Amino acid sequence: MDHIGGGEWAAIERIRALLPSPPANEIWIGDDAAAVAPPPAGPLLLAADLVVEGVHVDLALVGLDDLGWKAISVNVSDMAAMGGRPLHALVCVAGPPETDLGLLYTGIAAACQEYRCAVVGGDLSNAERLTVAVAVTGECPGGRPVLRSGARPGDYLVVTGGLGRSAAGLAALLHAATADGADGATGGAAAVAAGAEANIDAHRRPRARVSEGMVAAATGATAMIDVSDGMAMDVRHLAEASGVGVDLSTVPLDPFGSVTEEQALFGGEDYELLFATPDVDAVLDAFATEGLRAPIVIGRCTADPAQRRLRGGPLPEGGWEHRWAPAPR
Amino acid sequence: MDHIGGGEWAAIERIRALLPSPPANEIWIGDDAAAVAPPPAGPLLLAADLVVEGVHVDLALVGLDDLGWKAISVNVSDMAAMGGRPLHALVCVAGPPETDLGLLYTGIAAACQEYRCAVVGGDLSNAERLTVAVAVTGECPGGRPVLRSGARPGDYLVVTGGLGRSAAGLAALLHAATADGADGATGGAAAVAAGAEANIDAHRRPRARVSEGMVAAATGATAMIDVSDGMAMDVRHLAEASGVGVDLSTVPLDPFGSVTEEQALFGGEDYELLFATPDVDAVLDAFATEGLRAPIVIGRCTADPAQRRLRGGPLPEGGWEHRWAPAPR
Repeated sequence: MDHIGGGEWAAIERIRALLPSPPANEIWIGDDAAAVAPPPAGPLLLAADLVVEGVHVDLALVGLDDLGWKAISVNVSDMAAMGGRPLHALVCVAGPPETDLGLLYTGIAAACQEYRCAVVGGDLSNAERLTVAVAVTGECPGGRPVLRSGARPGDYLVVTGGLGRSAAGLAALLHAATADGADGATGGAAAVAAGAEANIDAHRRPRARVSEGMVAAATGATAMIDVSDGMAMDVRHLAEASGVGVDLSTVPLDPFGSVTEEQALFGGEDYELLFATPDVDAVLDAFATEGLRAPIVIGRCTADPAQRRLRGGPLPEGGWEHRWAPAPR
Repeated sequence: MDHIGGGEWAAIERIRALLPSPPANEIWIGDDAAAVAPPPAGPLLLAADLVVEGVHVDLALVGLDDLGWKAISVNVSDMAAMGGRPLHALVCVAGPPETDLGLLYTGIAAACQEYRCAVVGGDLSNAERLTVAVAVTGECPGGRPVLRSGARPGDYLVVTGGLGRSAAGLAALLHAATADGADGATGGAAAVAAGAEANIDAHRRPRARVSEGMVAAATGATAMIDVSDGMAMDVRHLAEASGVGVDLSTVPLDPFGSVTEEQALFGGEDYELLFATPDVDAVLDAFATEGLRAPIVIGRCTADPAQRRLRGGPLPEGGWEHRWAPAPR
């Protein structure tokens, strides 16, 4: 497929062929900038996130297409966490000349199709190690973004799904790779216990919870964040931004996977949404009406801004640190 | 100052302190996404560009603040080339833990102040080598973006200033560094001929030509591109997109610097604008009225789409290739 070393101009033309074409009134890839229709009403949402090989993704364990999927999903998750949905993506890829851009863009295109997000531009460059920087725009169908800072004492804290699957999937991949020795990902996948497949999929192809975020916003969520650094840390981020305490009754483990409580508390990159709401019945009804998975109530916000409690004890500290662990080349 | 290895959360807070604060109705750095006002009318412009240490910038020759300035300017130049102006920037920085983020953001903040562009978000990550990916939004005050593809036979080709200064500045820096041996940038700067200072400034701090692009658009420019790959190549890009030939009468050398014709033809990163217009008198009048430097007519578009002529002979081929030339660490 296409390689970064093969000439930027030719590579851009081939990438364009992998992606949808713009409507007649818009300019996407190929000019100095894209020109698109802004959101018809309400604010424009903007976010950007990096995915760096060896820090966020280990290419000995997942594919280049998975890295592309993830680079889009983590940005779309930022839109979801505001109660918004994505509109456009700009994709910058810096990597070695031998990088298989076709495989990378297969994952990018699949994610953008899933989230109905258009790749409208970007850049390519040589670099020693693969880095993908994506920026996205989005809109708020509800007209008002849900910030991290709006939670009030008494609000319920809700997550959109069980946590820890991505961390459990990574652990399964690492275990299989170690057991397999030098055979790496392919042989490792065969050695993985069948029950871990769903967790591995959650690690390889995390899903941004766009519909869930919009329904949470529509039912009056007062604060929202995506769980990318682990529940223990992201609960703290929301509580600190809002100036509230938290009293949690449960750690939501994913019912489909063999996930430890430690993975759910400290594992990163689940990309479920955590939100606060005064009306949990309205939330449960709306999620059911929309055919979404039932959200999980994990506790309540309290008036003491220093309080961080789980099942009557202190909420453990810690979180997901994206490591700098270069793979041998 | 701040270092990427010092904890992403703390680093983001310190970067925020270096940058302007949002108006009351907007959210910038610190939540999952920024929420800003979209352009009041017309299209939303979007672009993203990478600056990679060792490919686009040699940190033995220029400073981290220069790299930050450049990362913003190359993106703003994309807005200018559409006849637009920038609104917001998202800044992703991947780099080694010892990266001086304070110095980098000094240059980013200076450029954003120059161009009246707000840094509203971004990301930080560890990586082996510094990569800065910036995405910008913009608006078209004229309501209509100027594409590369609108030039017609008979249109005049105009550039907004002399070319080759950045390439001449880079050559002066390289010459000084070589003459100085291991002393590098500081000693090298002292050895530079005084007349080369303006060229070195053009290389270190390229200026995006936002006002010029808006005036060109307002006076009916039919096609526009920024000269980032060298005049010989970017003239071809515009001609190919428009399906016209070009018959050039001159290569515009910068009057203030000692620049060779080769540097002007093939040197990259001048970020002057090249545009086509049917009414060159209107252009010259408007630039004078606005107090802008007089633009330079370099030739005309022709009906033969294969024609590429300079002073009666063939337009030389070639252009600026951003090299992958890692500096020793």
